[in-house]
Amino acid sequence: MTVPGAPFTERTPRVVAARKLLRRSGRERAGRFLVEGAQAVGALLDVLDAPGPAPAPTVFELFVGESAASRSADLVARAGALGVPVNPVTDRAAAALSETVTPQGLVAVCGVLDVPLCTALAGSPRLVTVLVGTSDPGNAGTVIRVADAAGADAVVLAGDAGDPHNGKCVRSSAGSVFNLPIAVEREVPAALAQLRASGLRLVATSASGELDLHDPAADRVLAEPVAWLLGSEAHGLPTGLMAEADVRVRIPIHGRAESLNLATAAAVCVYATSRAQRPIRPGG
Amino acid sequence: MTVPGAPFTERTPRVVAARKLLRRSGRERAGRFLVEGAQAVGALLDVLDAPGPAPAPTVFELFVGESAASRSADLVARAGALGVPVNPVTDRAAAALSETVTPQGLVAVCGVLDVPLCTALAGSPRLVTVLVGTSDPGNAGTVIRVADAAGADAVVLAGDAGDPHNGKCVRSSAGSVFNLPIAVEREVPAALAQLRASGLRLVATSASGELDLHDPAADRVLAEPVAWLLGSEAHGLPTGLMAEADVRVRIPIHGRAESLNLATAAAVCVYATSRAQRPIRPGG
Repeated sequence: MTVPGAPFTERTPRVVAARKLLRRSGRERAGRFLVEGAQAVGALLDVLDAPGPAPAPTVFELFVGESAASRSADLVARAGALGVPVNPVTDRAAAALSETVTPQGLVAVCGVLDVPLCTALAGSPRLVTVLVGTSDPGNAGTVIRVADAAGADAVVLAGDAGDPHNGKCVRSSAGSVFNLPIAVEREVPAALAQLRASGLRLVATSASGELDLHDPAADRVLAEPVAWLLGSEAHGLPTGLMAEADVRVRIPIHGRAESLNLATAAAVCVYATSRAQRPIRPGG
Repeated sequence: MTVPGAPFTERTPRVVAARKLLRRSGRERAGRFLVEGAQAVGALLDVLDAPGPAPAPTVFELFVGESAASRSADLVARAGALGVPVNPVTDRAAAALSETVTPQGLVAVCGVLDVPLCTALAGSPRLVTVLVGTSDPGNAGTVIRVADAAGADAVVLAGDAGDPHNGKCVRSSAGSVFNLPIAVEREVPAALAQLRASGLRLVATSASGELDLHDPAADRVLAEPVAWLLGSEAHGLPTGLMAEADVRVRIPIHGRAESLNLATAAAVCVYATSRAQRPIRPGG
């Protein structure tokens, strides 16, 4: 389907249906979510093109605003070639599907990504990132991007940790939501039990943890399969959960800051794990 | 000075003058900036109480909204005890000085923090973080927080890297802007020359760097005094600057993500340096 010359329509039933996906309730009802912007849509097409460890999502359609049709002609052509139905709309209709200040006029409708926890933990996972009660979807997306970059096997959103299909999460993940399995498990104890049953040691981040992240003893822990438990931005992990973890690790603070924020703490912990699990031999 | 019972005033000349500090031009003209919210004001008072490596800033006054006077009575009392003039205003006047969605009614007026680069590099710095052309003040603040936590000696904003006194930067630094010397140097070549003259090796982050961050050879580089050069969110470091660095280090990417964002990349690099420079002996 080519866009040039196609009629750009406005308030079609499909635009109206897609608008409902801006809200979590609408996404849960439809089992679909929106993917906005050239970067995220590009990452989505990459996964259709060459599926990775996560199941390739179903892409139901791509709304393309009039201006985007010329500006992002390559991307639109690529979507068409990959069998994605392209739906030309007015710039105003495309903007109505957007959550950003400067809409790019490209919005895909995609089947939800999350898989059952047992699917996410299939195989022999060695590094899993678990968000417990993270409230900011932008932070969740950044942590998903870090987990992907560090080679994590899966990300788990446990308890009241928000919706990975939230637009902010998708955008701040820079496409990583498509790259590794994501599981949503509202019952935290059930999630922890499954993580343990998969052979993962539960490691909590804690300012008063018994192990310094930079202690060689931490490397020995992290060289084995681990699931990092990360708490909420404001309150960290609940005390009970902290106690239940197998090990509590503290990020050393050498200056006067009290702590790191969630995403940077996750980056430091997950990359320390990646380093311990994939050592480069001297001179190698 | 006690607040209870004091008259809460509205559009005084001081509120009007303070409002001008919401803009960079106003801050540069007055040599003052605003510190908003209980966390940032608390961190400011901590530094007045026990100065750290950065020079303690001058605090000219603390505007306290009517609701904040009772809600944050301890903080206000502490400010008074530290000799900070407390200025009770109406909630509306306090909100007029705020940049946040839910103003907390606490805004301090503070002398600008940045010091000349030679002052920031006095002593024998071992770890310096250099932001080159960072456009988002929230990211700059997060990087300042990470640098502080990792025990960096200074942060340098080089070139067109924004204003560390921007409200978003101050808030996302969670008070770290007060904790270590910050220098602003618009001339990037001059900044690099001074960093080198201070015995720092210039290390650039680059996706195609010749050295893997997790290679033991990188540890040997990072164990010596280094300045990390971090580029802009969208474009990274300019090619010329990349070539001019002494070493280019790549953060290993094991998944399908293309890169990390600026703050998480900074966290991984700066903490790897902290680890190399402050090794914990096995069993130590």
